[in-house]
Amino acid sequence: MACPAMANGNGSLKNLKLNDTKGKTITCKAAVVYGPGEPFVVENILVHPPQKMEVRIKILYTSICHTDLSAWRGVNEAQRAYPRIFGHEASGIVESVGEGVSEVEEGDIVVPIFNGECGECSMCKCEKTNLCERFGVDATKKVMEGDGTTRFSTVNGKPIFHFLNTSTFSEYTVVDSACVVKFLDSDHSLSHKNLTLLSCGVSTGVGGAWNTANVHSGSTVAIFGLGVVGLAVAEGARARGASKIIGVDINPDKFIKAQTMGVTDFINPDDEEKPVYERIREITDGGVHYSFECTGNVDVLRDAFLSSHEGWGLTVILGVHASPKLLPIHPMELLDGRNIVGCVFGGFKGRSQLPHFAKECGQGVVKLDNFITHELPFEEIDKAFDLLITGKSLRCLLHF
Amino acid sequence: MACPAMANGNGSLKNLKLNDTKGKTITCKAAVVYGPGEPFVVENILVHPPQKMEVRIKILYTSICHTDLSAWRGVNEAQRAYPRIFGHEASGIVESVGEGVSEVEEGDIVVPIFNGECGECSMCKCEKTNLCERFGVDATKKVMEGDGTTRFSTVNGKPIFHFLNTSTFSEYTVVDSACVVKFLDSDHSLSHKNLTLLSCGVSTGVGGAWNTANVHSGSTVAIFGLGVVGLAVAEGARARGASKIIGVDINPDKFIKAQTMGVTDFINPDDEEKPVYERIREITDGGVHYSFECTGNVDVLRDAFLSSHEGWGLTVILGVHASPKLLPIHPMELLDGRNIVGCVFGGFKGRSQLPHFAKECGQGVVKLDNFITHELPFEEIDKAFDLLITGKSLRCLLHF
Repeated sequence: MACPAMANGNGSLKNLKLNDTKGKTITCKAAVVYGPGEPFVVENILVHPPQKMEVRIKILYTSICHTDLSAWRGVNEAQRAYPRIFGHEASGIVESVGEGVSEVEEGDIVVPIFNGECGECSMCKCEKTNLCERFGVDATKKVMEGDGTTRFSTVNGKPIFHFLNTSTFSEYTVVDSACVVKFLDSDHSLSHKNLTLLSCGVSTGVGGAWNTANVHSGSTVAIFGLGVVGLAVAEGARARGASKIIGVDINPDKFIKAQTMGVTDFINPDDEEKPVYERIREITDGGVHYSFECTGNVDVLRDAFLSSHEGWGLTVILGVHASPKLLPIHPMELLDGRNIVGCVFGGFKGRSQLPHFAKECGQGVVKLDNFITHELPFEEIDKAFDLLITGKSLRCLLHF
Repeated sequence: MACPAMANGNGSLKNLKLNDTKGKTITCKAAVVYGPGEPFVVENILVHPPQKMEVRIKILYTSICHTDLSAWRGVNEAQRAYPRIFGHEASGIVESVGEGVSEVEEGDIVVPIFNGECGECSMCKCEKTNLCERFGVDATKKVMEGDGTTRFSTVNGKPIFHFLNTSTFSEYTVVDSACVVKFLDSDHSLSHKNLTLLSCGVSTGVGGAWNTANVHSGSTVAIFGLGVVGLAVAEGARARGASKIIGVDINPDKFIKAQTMGVTDFINPDDEEKPVYERIREITDGGVHYSFECTGNVDVLRDAFLSSHEGWGLTVILGVHASPKLLPIHPMELLDGRNIVGCVFGGFKGRSQLPHFAKECGQGVVKLDNFITHELPFEEIDKAFDLLITGKSLRCLLHF
């Protein structure tokens, strides 16, 4: 018997009969990875019903960010677990909920978040942090929090591991309710496609500028790495009224697009004879107020750190540093008054604060359309990865 | 002809005829160092008149802190310069001023500060920092800012280098006016001896707790290293109402005194089987709000960092790290929401803010008497160094 969900796999939302699948195991498409850097196998898998405090989501759009890339490659051995379903940026609709879930229900428009918010732990209750004791970012975590097992398996019954609380490279996924943000149509005017962007990259960049750095009007900003996160920082800084937003990237193709997203000055390190930080100090009267490291490279991190002004400069780490290299900063250099902080998910508490952010995006405070450069059917996930690796795409949306 | 100042060298303040020396070179006692780690030679030197925007101070009391110790040993080769007069913690009285100096005059009670405040640069005008573009901390600086020469020389005319804008191991010293804080008797009730403490160590520790960390009532604090700076942190944290102040030191003799200065719990790393940060996390429900590194050891720095709570913990670096070792922190560890910052002179803008701090000390908000454990004549500077090296003194005041 064909699974009802399969029959609806490529259909429209209107045809989705959610109740048909409630409580049942769903057979659907997913991209499964069987070893570090091995090809994505788009195949049918089994998605089991959500358990206590879990939500099963029908993914409408998913996209790829660099964290998926490094995890797929298995750069960090401690994080390896196969077979696994990657993906953490997506939007979708609730198919069914498990016992005890009251904040979302079938049919709700949602975005899964890799940085959960249980709402009850000491960190969730503290306004200083958006981390969560139970559902924080943990790339080594591969099973559900509740019972330590997986909700995915191969058609032969072999468990498939979860990734970053989300695993969105699947037509259906199961996540903890702490990792689901609900968006009411009445609260915003964003399309499903644009909501996808709030699931990771854009929220990380804009939130890095707003929540973590608190960029002020008239300030100067340097952004190292002009991918989605870096450009989202630019959008956030532009919205706050920064007077100079310097983009640094070794790919000059990125400058054209970046100009439309707030970046006012460009530096290609390959064109410079002196260190980039010296060049930035020259054009900003001693250094920027805020610098953002969006590359995951520690040498770039040092340049970002030194490009900020002594006394008040702040460097925000947004890149994912997979290498074991330590901070290339001497303790005494912190006494020059340059500060450096890390930032997860833009400092947003997902469930509490993302709906308001969506509203602001809908009002045009941050323009989302520019971030979506490609769209492909889910089966072409390999092509989407290629577009990201070669720097040709910002976000390539995959649809089911 | 005997120099008037020499005649007054061991006399009381009342006998000091300041005008007798104005505009003249003074011959007086100083402790001169001729090479890295070489003995202090207490000898007569020449102290030339203050030039434009400079102040000549008769030092009443000076004391020794660990920065003098590492500088004397010449740990950092780039900072070596000999012959040199060390010392940066002192109190004194203005003997004469150079052209253009209006904020202090002969007879004023002053404290020299190694971290100057010109009041005119962009950093002095910014409330976010207490650094100064012209008179910041620079251990490689060895001459006066104004004309690049020294105001000290041997009796044979050989220049003797300055140290940290201050050079207080001399009966008379010349400093830039940006490095002089004036205290009005009407504003405070501190003795000259106690004022000396505000020149470096106590201000650094208390200010680290107040200005840099902004310790809040009911918070938890860990202090690594219970010398003067660490104990001053404890005094500052106690004054702010911290509920638990953990002192960490390998010298248990320090615990008795520390108890009288706000420290509530003690950890001797040598007595612990597990890392100190784990022990601290156990007794503070996951980590302290604020940790202070006052040892200058990077391994201790890592312990201090990890002893703070994820999400909101803040580590303040107060120790002087003379080793070239970099921060032993991985970039991704900053994403756990533990922050780390450096602190110079407790974040105090010396000239603007130290007089008010003196007033608070006079009112008993911070108790200064406990910090002075010894007093010796200046000639016994070697003994004072020994007391510091062996951990037997907090501050040993030297008087002329």
